[in-house]
Amino acid sequence: MTGIKQQLLSMVLDDLDRIETALESNLTPHLELVRKAAGHLMFAGGKRLRPLLIVLSARICGHEIPFVTKFASIFEFLHTATLLHDDVIDGATMRRGKPVANAVFGPSVTVLTGDFLLARALRIAAESESLRIIEVVSAMTEEISQGEIHQLIRKGDVSITEDEYMDVIRRKTGVLIQGACKTGAILAGASSEAENALTQYGDHLGLVFQIADDILDYTADTDELGKIVGADLREGKLTLPVIHALKAATATDRQRMEAIVANPDFTTEEFAELQGLLHRYGGIEYAKTVASDHVKAAKKSLEMFEPSETKTILSLMADYALDRRA
Amino acid sequence: MTGIKQQLLSMVLDDLDRIETALESNLTPHLELVRKAAGHLMFAGGKRLRPLLIVLSARICGHEIPFVTKFASIFEFLHTATLLHDDVIDGATMRRGKPVANAVFGPSVTVLTGDFLLARALRIAAESESLRIIEVVSAMTEEISQGEIHQLIRKGDVSITEDEYMDVIRRKTGVLIQGACKTGAILAGASSEAENALTQYGDHLGLVFQIADDILDYTADTDELGKIVGADLREGKLTLPVIHALKAATATDRQRMEAIVANPDFTTEEFAELQGLLHRYGGIEYAKTVASDHVKAAKKSLEMFEPSETKTILSLMADYALDRRA
Repeated sequence: MTGIKQQLLSMVLDDLDRIETALESNLTPHLELVRKAAGHLMFAGGKRLRPLLIVLSARICGHEIPFVTKFASIFEFLHTATLLHDDVIDGATMRRGKPVANAVFGPSVTVLTGDFLLARALRIAAESESLRIIEVVSAMTEEISQGEIHQLIRKGDVSITEDEYMDVIRRKTGVLIQGACKTGAILAGASSEAENALTQYGDHLGLVFQIADDILDYTADTDELGKIVGADLREGKLTLPVIHALKAATATDRQRMEAIVANPDFTTEEFAELQGLLHRYGGIEYAKTVASDHVKAAKKSLEMFEPSETKTILSLMADYALDRRA
Repeated sequence: MTGIKQQLLSMVLDDLDRIETALESNLTPHLELVRKAAGHLMFAGGKRLRPLLIVLSARICGHEIPFVTKFASIFEFLHTATLLHDDVIDGATMRRGKPVANAVFGPSVTVLTGDFLLARALRIAAESESLRIIEVVSAMTEEISQGEIHQLIRKGDVSITEDEYMDVIRRKTGVLIQGACKTGAILAGASSEAENALTQYGDHLGLVFQIADDILDYTADTDELGKIVGADLREGKLTLPVIHALKAATATDRQRMEAIVANPDFTTEEFAELQGLLHRYGGIEYAKTVASDHVKAAKKSLEMFEPSETKTILSLMADYALDRRA
């Protein structure tokens, strides 16, 4: 475990406990199978990043609201719903070190359990009786599905630009993390300045998380990651390290990279060759720099808040988002 | 076309026009592919039953609200979302006389377009700024996914009872039709008596529609139905005609029926044999009687309303629900 992770964990232990309880008690399906299929992934050691963000965002606005953890479930449920549908779509085999739900329960149960979690999330949002929260959550859900489809359309297309990549990851990952921060502020009845600051923070943090994820797919090993390394490329997902390296490479090396990208059945040797090229053309370094700028911007968004333990945690989370190993 | 259908169509022509426009203008995806994939099914001659019900329910409560058609889209979007996910799950090949979206766009786009429509429906509900409508729509969505999973769990299980069947069809089909009627009443600011009456009407109508659908799967021909006859059985869905006939049959005939049900690759001859047994044991007749009781109950629910053209239409819709050929 990295130092930051350990430090962070010790500071949010009680919150994580409350979140686990809230997730269990707000799932409430009629059917045991739905609980099993949803729980298979949801209780397999997720980071609870999104629920934590809503709790911490409410707290930094000076509000310690007992029912915040209930609404925290919205974001973990939505997150799990998208992962379940992703796994059906991507044909992934492992997630969080376990076989994916799709492999255990089959695509039908997995798709429908995703639908249930999506609906459940919106139902809990409705129970907030806050039209603004309902609007944030439903708008978010719309964006996510479109981000996923956009990614799908551009699958394997080496002409994807950095701007387009940023647009896709903002939709498919960013809005949910941003939405959690914003919802925390709304629940706390924060000033519009505080709400905007947390919305900005969430936007930057979401980008850091996704870019770091995309880097890990080339730098981590499978044991650390809990899923197969190189999976993105095998699914034809062109991410920032590759997009940058393709742009920077010589014609010959670019052609070689394109050939590897074009063949989803690339060998371990070919993948290693691609990793070498990503390093040679600074793809990994570049992605780290972009993410690092967003870490700084995320922290800067918090400037308006007085120093506090909560501010320290939010700031550490931005560091952790980039430095993590999985 | 049957007489009732023609009569009904002539009475709702203007409403149907407005609904088509509303469906087109409220879809608003960022991506052309989403419009295509959603439109493939949604603009392939659906009956627009659910949008019509919300418009008519508002009208019978004395309110002609121009924006009702906008909220009518909620129900067609949700309906389409469930059909898209169903087609991925069932592996169906035809729907409304066309290849299913899954066959044209692949499972990934189909699942994600379903997610988009689901999210879009909830977003439009949020725009109503009515907490009651938001609650109805989100609760409904939760029920539907659980009804579908329940059906899936009981796939091919000949021990399913009539009560369990009614429970499943109420969830997977009924709540949406009921929700449309209820939402119309809420939008119209109807009295709680009127709202309850329309909710009751919707409950009975939903059951009629699904039971009639399940009967058609044994009695229609493929051309009329726009999908393959016998598809339910091939997917292991045991519906009322079969449930009743299994209960009424002699041990020998029951065993024969169970053998056909157990084999999804049954031949045309075996299917004809099963149809014969369903008739012999009154399965079709029984299902028609149950549906017919719900037609009567649906009409009775409307008793509190003064005679009007709208009341006539709602009453005819109950007849049509059972008498239709597709």
